[in-house]
Amino acid sequence: MSTNNRRWILKQRPVGDIRDGDLQLVDAPIPKPAEGQILVRNIYLMVAPTNRVWMSDIDQYMAPVQLGDVMRGVTMGAVVESRHPAFRPGDVVEGGMAWEEYSVTDRARPVPVGHGLPLRAFASVLGNSGMTAYFGLTEIARPKAGETLVVSAAAGGVGSIAAQIGKILGCRVVGIAGGERKCRLAVEEFGLDACVDYKRGHLLEDLRAACPDGIDVVFENVGGEVMDAEMTLLNIGARIAVCGLISTYNANGDWWAPKMFRNVIMKRARIEGFLISDFVPRFAEGLAVMAPWVRDGLIKYHVDVVDGIENAPVALGRLFSGANVGKQVVRLAREPAFG
Amino acid sequence: MSTNNRRWILKQRPVGDIRDGDLQLVDAPIPKPAEGQILVRNIYLMVAPTNRVWMSDIDQYMAPVQLGDVMRGVTMGAVVESRHPAFRPGDVVEGGMAWEEYSVTDRARPVPVGHGLPLRAFASVLGNSGMTAYFGLTEIARPKAGETLVVSAAAGGVGSIAAQIGKILGCRVVGIAGGERKCRLAVEEFGLDACVDYKRGHLLEDLRAACPDGIDVVFENVGGEVMDAEMTLLNIGARIAVCGLISTYNANGDWWAPKMFRNVIMKRARIEGFLISDFVPRFAEGLAVMAPWVRDGLIKYHVDVVDGIENAPVALGRLFSGANVGKQVVRLAREPAFG
Repeated sequence: MSTNNRRWILKQRPVGDIRDGDLQLVDAPIPKPAEGQILVRNIYLMVAPTNRVWMSDIDQYMAPVQLGDVMRGVTMGAVVESRHPAFRPGDVVEGGMAWEEYSVTDRARPVPVGHGLPLRAFASVLGNSGMTAYFGLTEIARPKAGETLVVSAAAGGVGSIAAQIGKILGCRVVGIAGGERKCRLAVEEFGLDACVDYKRGHLLEDLRAACPDGIDVVFENVGGEVMDAEMTLLNIGARIAVCGLISTYNANGDWWAPKMFRNVIMKRARIEGFLISDFVPRFAEGLAVMAPWVRDGLIKYHVDVVDGIENAPVALGRLFSGANVGKQVVRLAREPAFG
Repeated sequence: MSTNNRRWILKQRPVGDIRDGDLQLVDAPIPKPAEGQILVRNIYLMVAPTNRVWMSDIDQYMAPVQLGDVMRGVTMGAVVESRHPAFRPGDVVEGGMAWEEYSVTDRARPVPVGHGLPLRAFASVLGNSGMTAYFGLTEIARPKAGETLVVSAAAGGVGSIAAQIGKILGCRVVGIAGGERKCRLAVEEFGLDACVDYKRGHLLEDLRAACPDGIDVVFENVGGEVMDAEMTLLNIGARIAVCGLISTYNANGDWWAPKMFRNVIMKRARIEGFLISDFVPRFAEGLAVMAPWVRDGLIKYHVDVVDGIENAPVALGRLFSGANVGKQVVRLAREPAFG
C-alpha cells in the first residue's frame, strides 16, 4: 500500500469556468483515523454540478469550501482501518469526504452492496444520483400517469434515471439533452418518448412540437433558457421540481432566472427545490424500490468513468461541457467484486 | 334613469404605462337583457393589477381583451331587470363584467349583503380581494404560528388583508410598502410587527433588519426587486405564494424574474402561484370565516374610492404608481344601505 495520498486543494475561487490554478493537486501522507473514525480507500469520486457551487463564496446550503482546504466531494470506498464500532475493514461506505485517495471520517453511510449488482451501480443509479431522481420525482414533482413529464439533462446521471422512473409511473416523458447522440440514447436506450436537442438552436419550437399537450411536470436540472422554454409551455397546475440549475453555476453575481416567470401565476404552477441530503434517512426505502427495477432491467444506467484522482477537475468539467453520458465518476481504485 | 351607458373601449395595446388614447370612453345605449340574462347597474368597479395584464396580447389565464372591445372588469352592482330565474331586481351581484355603468350578463355571483357591514366591505375585504388574501394565505402559503411572514404591497387591497390574517394565525408579520405613510398605516392600523419602505432605496438591508430570524413565508404581490430581496432571506423550507407580480405588468417582452432564484434549491423553497378564480366555489367558506373577523374588528380594511366611470383608467393607474391605500375601487353609483 502506498503511503501517499493525492488530494486536490482549492487555491482560488473560479471565475466562470474552472481554470488551471484554481485547484492544485498535492501529495499528503495517508491520514490516521482517530478514535471513532475510519480510514477509507476511496474507489469512486462522484462528481456533480453542485461541486462547482461549493467553490463559490455565496450563501448556499452548506459552507463553501475554504481557500487552502481540500476540495469537498462525495466518495464511495472501502474501509481500510476502523476505530469506529459500526465499521470493519472491507466494508463499503459512502459519504461527504473529499477529492482525495484516502479519507478519514466519523460518519459514513454503509453501502448495501450485493443485489447482484456491481459497485458502480451503488455509485450511480442506487446512490445519491438515483435517489435524487427517485425522491425528487416521487416526493416533489409527483407526476400522475398520462401526464407529460419533461426532464432536462435527460442523458445525465440524475436525468436519465428520473426520466425512466417517469416512464414506469406511466407518464409521457420528453427529454432535453445536448446533441444528437445523447437524444438518440435517451429514446433508444432509456425509452423516452421523445428527446429535444437544445443545441439545434430552436429549443422552444422543438419542445412545443414534442409536447403537443403541453407540459404537466418538469424535473429540472438546467435552469436558464431551458427552464424558460419549459415554463412557456406549462399546463394549468404544473409542477416543477428544481433539482439543479447547472446552466447558472458558473455565473458570478446574478443567476439567470426564467424570464417566463409570470406563468407561475398564469398556470397556477408550483416550483419547488430540493436537496437529496434531506432524503438520506429514507435511502433504504428508495433502494428497496429501485434495486429490483435496476436488476430487472426496467431502469438502465450509464456510468461515465474517468480514471485517476489527477483527472477530477477534468471529470467535473465534463458535466459543464456536456461531455458526460450518465453518471460521471472518477475511479480511484479497482472496483472490488461482490456476491 | 339615464338611457346612456358610458363604457371604456380598448383602442390600442398599452406599451408600458397606460397612456391617453389606449382606452376611449364612449357612450352606448343601456343594453337589454336577453332571456336568461340580467341587467346590472354597476355600483363599484373593482380595479386590480391584473386588469393591465388583460390589455396585453400575451398567453395568460384568460383571453386578452380584444382591440375595439369594451374593457373587461369585475364589478358589483344591483339588478335592474332580470330575465334570469335566480335573480330579482334589487339583488346585489358581482361578476366579471366590464368598465361600464350598466352590464348584461348571464352569470353573476349573488353577494350575501348584510352581516351589519356596508356594501363596500363586500367589494373589498369580503370580495375578491379579501378572498384572494384568505385562500392564498391559508391554502397556498400555509404559514404556521410563530413563523415570519412577509407580505409585499402590505397597504394594498389584498396585502393589507393577508397581513392581518397572518397576525390572526399567530405569525410575526413584516410588510413591504412604498412610503412612510403606508408603512405607518401597516403597523399602526393593520397591526403588522414591522413594515419596510422600499422607496428608501436599501430594501434588502432594511428587510434583513426587520426579519432577524429570516423569512419562512412570503405572500407576494410585487415580484422583481422586491421578490429578489425576499428570496435572498429565505429560511429552509420557505414557501412563497405568488398572488401578483405588479412590478412586471407594464413590461413588454420579458418579465423580470427574481435573480436570487438559486435559493429555490438552496433553501428547498416552494414557489406557488394561484388565481382567485379557482377558489370561487369556496367563497361561502371564506366568507363564513372572514365576516366575523371583519365585524369584530380583528381585520380592518380601507377602500380607496375614486368616483365616476370616467376615472377608471386613473384608478387603475393609482395601483401602479402606488397611490392607493387599501382596495382601489371606482364608484359608479351611490351605495345602497342594507340591514
